[in-house]
Amino acid sequence: MASTGLVKERLRNQRIELASWSFGNTGTRFKVFPLPGAARTAYEKVDDAATVHHFTGVAPSVALHIPWDAVDDYVDLAKHAASQGMRIGAINPNLFQDEDYRLGSLCHPDPAVRAKALAHVRECLSIAESVGSGILSLWLADGTNYPGQDSMAARQERLHEGLQEIYRSLPAATRLLLEYKFFEPAFYHTDVPDWGTSYSHCLRLGERAQVLVDTGHHAPGTNIEFIVAFLLGQQRLGGFHFNSRNYADDDLMVGAADPFELFLIMREVVAAGALEGQVAFMLDQCHNIEPKVRAQIRSVMNVQEATAKALLVDEPALARAQAEGDVLGANAVLMDAFSTDVRPLLAELREDMGLDPDPMAAYLRSGHEGRIAAERGTGSQAGPAGWGYA
Amino acid sequence: MASTGLVKERLRNQRIELASWSFGNTGTRFKVFPLPGAARTAYEKVDDAATVHHFTGVAPSVALHIPWDAVDDYVDLAKHAASQGMRIGAINPNLFQDEDYRLGSLCHPDPAVRAKALAHVRECLSIAESVGSGILSLWLADGTNYPGQDSMAARQERLHEGLQEIYRSLPAATRLLLEYKFFEPAFYHTDVPDWGTSYSHCLRLGERAQVLVDTGHHAPGTNIEFIVAFLLGQQRLGGFHFNSRNYADDDLMVGAADPFELFLIMREVVAAGALEGQVAFMLDQCHNIEPKVRAQIRSVMNVQEATAKALLVDEPALARAQAEGDVLGANAVLMDAFSTDVRPLLAELREDMGLDPDPMAAYLRSGHEGRIAAERGTGSQAGPAGWGYA
Amino acid sequence: MASTGLVKERLRNQRIELASWSFGNTGTRFKVFPLPGAARTAYEKVDDAATVHHFTGVAPSVALHIPWDAVDDYVDLAKHAASQGMRIGAINPNLFQDEDYRLGSLCHPDPAVRAKALAHVRECLSIAESVGSGILSLWLADGTNYPGQDSMAARQERLHEGLQEIYRSLPAATRLLLEYKFFEPAFYHTDVPDWGTSYSHCLRLGERAQVLVDTGHHAPGTNIEFIVAFLLGQQRLGGFHFNSRNYADDDLMVGAADPFELFLIMREVVAAGALEGQVAFMLDQCHNIEPKVRAQIRSVMNVQEATAKALLVDEPALARAQAEGDVLGANAVLMDAFSTDVRPLLAELREDMGLDPDPMAAYLRSGHEGRIAAERGTGSQAGPAGWGYA
Amino acid sequence: MASTGLVKERLRNQRIELASWSFGNTGTRFKVFPLPGAARTAYEKVDDAATVHHFTGVAPSVALHIPWDAVDDYVDLAKHAASQGMRIGAINPNLFQDEDYRLGSLCHPDPAVRAKALAHVRECLSIAESVGSGILSLWLADGTNYPGQDSMAARQERLHEGLQEIYRSLPAATRLLLEYKFFEPAFYHTDVPDWGTSYSHCLRLGERAQVLVDTGHHAPGTNIEFIVAFLLGQQRLGGFHFNSRNYADDDLMVGAADPFELFLIMREVVAAGALEGQVAFMLDQCHNIEPKVRAQIRSVMNVQEATAKALLVDEPALARAQAEGDVLGANAVLMDAFSTDVRPLLAELREDMGLDPDPMAAYLRSGHEGRIAAERGTGSQAGPAGWGYA
Repeated sequence: MASTGLVKERLRNQRIELASWSFGNTGTRFKVFPLPGAARTAYEKVDDAATVHHFTGVAPSVALHIPWDAVDDYVDLAKHAASQGMRIGAINPNLFQDEDYRLGSLCHPDPAVRAKALAHVRECLSIAESVGSGILSLWLADGTNYPGQDSMAARQERLHEGLQEIYRSLPAATRLLLEYKFFEPAFYHTDVPDWGTSYSHCLRLGERAQVLVDTGHHAPGTNIEFIVAFLLGQQRLGGFHFNSRNYADDDLMVGAADPFELFLIMREVVAAGALEGQVAFMLDQCHNIEPKVRAQIRSVMNVQEATAKALLVDEPALARAQAEGDVLGANAVLMDAFSTDVRPLLAELREDMGLDPDPMAAYLRSGHEGRIAAERGTGSQAGPAGWGYA
Repeated sequence: MASTGLVKERLRNQRIELASWSFGNTGTRFKVFPLPGAARTAYEKVDDAATVHHFTGVAPSVALHIPWDAVDDYVDLAKHAASQGMRIGAINPNLFQDEDYRLGSLCHPDPAVRAKALAHVRECLSIAESVGSGILSLWLADGTNYPGQDSMAARQERLHEGLQEIYRSLPAATRLLLEYKFFEPAFYHTDVPDWGTSYSHCLRLGERAQVLVDTGHHAPGTNIEFIVAFLLGQQRLGGFHFNSRNYADDDLMVGAADPFELFLIMREVVAAGALEGQVAFMLDQCHNIEPKVRAQIRSVMNVQEATAKALLVDEPALARAQAEGDVLGANAVLMDAFSTDVRPLLAELREDMGLDPDPMAAYLRSGHEGRIAAERGTGSQAGPAGWGYA
Repeated sequence: MASTGLVKERLRNQRIELASWSFGNTGTRFKVFPLPGAARTAYEKVDDAATVHHFTGVAPSVALHIPWDAVDDYVDLAKHAASQGMRIGAINPNLFQDEDYRLGSLCHPDPAVRAKALAHVRECLSIAESVGSGILSLWLADGTNYPGQDSMAARQERLHEGLQEIYRSLPAATRLLLEYKFFEPAFYHTDVPDWGTSYSHCLRLGERAQVLVDTGHHAPGTNIEFIVAFLLGQQRLGGFHFNSRNYADDDLMVGAADPFELFLIMREVVAAGALEGQVAFMLDQCHNIEPKVRAQIRSVMNVQEATAKALLVDEPALARAQAEGDVLGANAVLMDAFSTDVRPLLAELREDMGLDPDPMAAYLRSGHEGRIAAERGTGSQAGPAGWGYA
Repeated sequence: MASTGLVKERLRNQRIELASWSFGNTGTRFKVFPLPGAARTAYEKVDDAATVHHFTGVAPSVALHIPWDAVDDYVDLAKHAASQGMRIGAINPNLFQDEDYRLGSLCHPDPAVRAKALAHVRECLSIAESVGSGILSLWLADGTNYPGQDSMAARQERLHEGLQEIYRSLPAATRLLLEYKFFEPAFYHTDVPDWGTSYSHCLRLGERAQVLVDTGHHAPGTNIEFIVAFLLGQQRLGGFHFNSRNYADDDLMVGAADPFELFLIMREVVAAGALEGQVAFMLDQCHNIEPKVRAQIRSVMNVQEATAKALLVDEPALARAQAEGDVLGANAVLMDAFSTDVRPLLAELREDMGLDPDPMAAYLRSGHEGRIAAERGTGSQAGPAGWGYA
């Protein structure tokens, strides 16, 4: 196995980005349950992210979603973050919540809607520059619900044109990460439904266009770690949106639904030498029924544990068994790492870093949960998802 | 093939129930697009259902969802319906949109929440009696998001107790239809996830408890017509919630995603002699991006076309081929019926019934769509599903 | 957490049944790769099972498949087993590999074929009696490939009649376990496709008819541990066929594809108090490309590890968190058990039992693998699955 | 709608390629049922294909699978085909049925096995040249069953090298079609699991490398017509392997499981102007329980019917509705074409072509089925797939 010191060193340098929207109220189409202490503003979301970083030590950035996180002065927001040891991460345009986007955004049949969408993305690029963010993270809800509703081929052309416009507007140090999603909110076809579509568009754009893998955005049974390995091999993996799922885009805590899958993903990252580097490791989750700050702490810990196990794989033994065609032997090397209890190692690391070895217990003791509940009530007035109420 | 006269006779007697909530604004968790003319009140929903019936002639009842359709005087609402040739169909309690239901309703760990849920169901039973409805249609959103969150076994016991209470309260002429759903809004386990669970509970309750099959509530690949045939064989198919899906519970127009599947389902119904009888044929759809009244007319027509094809199957030829083990011959008999263009037959039937042979064209000519858009605007103030806006 | 002594005691008493056919050559429809040392006869299969038991100490029985394991004298085979500390477990009739079964067995349209199938099952019951087995394990490959090919409803009636005949023939101390399977080899409908169908038939038969859960026989996304909990609650879980899968009925080593799922299943078993009792824990796997005895040892160890973790769940803490609706707290209790490295505990147990603490290493040292390869070559002349060769 | 004359003209020119292996015995891993009249040799397969062409008029080529169709003199086989109005179509190397391929072929860890695989492909290229075939159709069964078994990244590199070697050996007029498959026979990862992987490799190879879409090789829920539209837009759709499926790679008759999907696929082909041109339309099916020649005739007819409907789409009306964002109107245009009974049109076309208007009836009257059954018995000695028999 790898030396513990080296493993700890790499875990200490790991960076996991939080998403602002995970701290606000979220839900399903049936109901958004308002939770005590849910963040109401971009500033509160940054504060909550800082709290997660305070207890875990490896989550010093927070992604924004515009206009959910719209503020008058983004530089001020970035300063607010910096004052707590945080920086602003990826900027996420919202191209799905305006009435105009009923039939799409960049793929919409109407050029006026496409122009509006492009303008919003450009605004986000300017926000990115002003806060020092190097990532534009683009998810399109575009698609159709019924066969024939629109031309899938024509929409691809519109998409290509729109992406080209965006790519041309990209500041020099900024990357465009193009997310794909199997389905939802579109139910017949989605314009970027799989990694192949995203990858193909990125290839046509240029090197700073890369694929974003959201671990909840695949067809049932998809081997995600294969996609990760493939994209890393082609230098086109831009980053992750981590979460977990049993069914569709469930957006559960990463590692909750299938901790083994998370380990296998992180093992491909480690094997490709991509743990340190450009790949952005971002959480993208919805804590519909559970306390949000706690859930984020847990999620960060889950990623750490999977990473620690991935780092513990006895690579020489694995390579040897693979070369010999020893199916069970090679598998056993991997499983040995997965079976290891890495919590003591991580506790040690945290102590080395001057943190509490048990971030969750420390957080609970801190009284933060009660404090924000008292201050904020049940968060912002998220509209009920339920469409039945007048 | 069956005689055309007989086929028309049976199609004339077919009954398809509409759902009130299909006429109001609906959407995904990402966005509820307000559509022109969306119904704002229970009365408007009944009016829209009556319009659909006016043009199709086979949809004389409308299901209610409580409290979405709560009114001061249900007898008055029923009279309002009757004045337009409509009656109130199944009553659907809502056990998922109250804050108390965050962790479930009938399966909730807290007895107080379970009692509250039961009280609501009893209220719905009393509404059912007052409007002359014979069906209580029960869908539970109950489940958990994380392993260990609650005891699945204990929840089954609570569920059984709750259902027993409801069954005991059932008026003599009323049936309890218990719906199942694969997942959503719960993402780890659902308390009634499949027909087997619903069926088992129904068996323990008694004869007036029956399974409700929503065509969108199955795991990928599930052969729904098998379930239909099985339940019909056991006298436990209470009714359908018709819609169609490509992925999850997409709630698209029935017959839109897979018209062949709809044909196969209706063929099992016809083969079992269950077209006429107790089985309730109900639409349960969400028209997120398309005009609602038109979509309902189309859906009724889709069910009619599938039924017409099912009635046209040459049953003696089919039985003969099956008995001979003639795989391709038997399949060809079925496909012959499916390949038939039944639109002329249905046009004829409609003329026999004094209707326009083309309901959609007639509806569009009627000017109804523009009228309700002008009168109602874009419907009731459905809260934005999006959780990001303040 | 539970006391280590008690946990070890329960693990010591755990029993896992092996399947004879896992020791012979198996494959996909594309190719059966003959592997060195594959067992050629029922006697050799029993020997290999005994070897697995020798190193693991918890696998003292072996299931037979008739006629794959047909011998002249079953009593002699049972004695051969007993001489190595083994007994014969479940008897599995084969109702799919005879030309007559092209269109089914118990559901076949031709009564003569159904009678033949019944006769074979009765023969298996007599074998069961002669070897002292208390379980008839029934899997039917019955189904159709094309809509209309046969009447699904009529086939259910034939199935019910056949099962009744079998149930009536059941010796007093014998149970009938009815397996279900989502699909394959039938590709349109399967006659027992899900637990609900199996359960319903079992209910109609009587108490000694129980459902057999093969962990690889479900639709994508199915929550298997829910089914386990449900059937245990209804006293109808007869046993498991353990294996793992990523896609269809992959028949991989149990715990290889999703160790967390195996843990969750065993946790429901433990929570229901069913670890000791009537539930049969059987392996049913195909080692297409890996050495078979080693793979079986590994599989037994995987079940043991999952069971150990399930036994380590801090039940009082879990119950407390569940009662409080503490979603994250309850989940954390479960995850704590899963995260624990139970290999040291199991090593200790093995030493307590007089076994080598590392069964795999001990087996490899034993030279058995080379010995059987030398003696047997590459197993029996399993026909190539590939249909292309003459 | 399009003019009938034009539609007939295009249908008359349509070409569908048959696969030799569809005429021999096939089955599942559980059983290969020998069917009366199954072809025993490459010559008989060509004869059966010619029979299908004789009755349908649009199937004048037959693909070969090497070594299943190995003959001493391929030129003679091609002449034999030509004498019946047939030509040899795509050549398919077999890289999965040799003992050496247990752990893969082009991706195998051992360079010697990779070299052997390459040599076989080169042999196939030489066969292709000698029979005048312009397509090498490559499907790899390569993959792994267990995590860690081999390095997925390293296998991609080996794959790229192998494909480059093949591409370099490609005769000038020959295309390489690279097939992808979701899973089977590999059950953890597959080396070319999706269109994105195939597409990426093709891009790196050059213009004569194109993606082959087998309609049964996708994850559940995949929108295949989107992939078709995308690849056509990028000039990288090389051809189809048509069949249909409900679950996995079921290899049922095309159009049997979901005739609407087939229509949607053909509609994208027609819309892209690709009905005539380079795209190869090939059947790839397994008739496990049904008569093979009849099944092929039926399959050709199914493709014709889907194509006819696709050609009947009122394209101007569709484009208009799409431009107006008329969701239901656009969908209705498409459904109108699908609802049309095109059998009379096709009967007319066949009479125009001097064929019997009902190919199936004509074939049955011809007595061919009885004749081949009498001559050939139940085909070649396909080994039993079942691994249990000695």
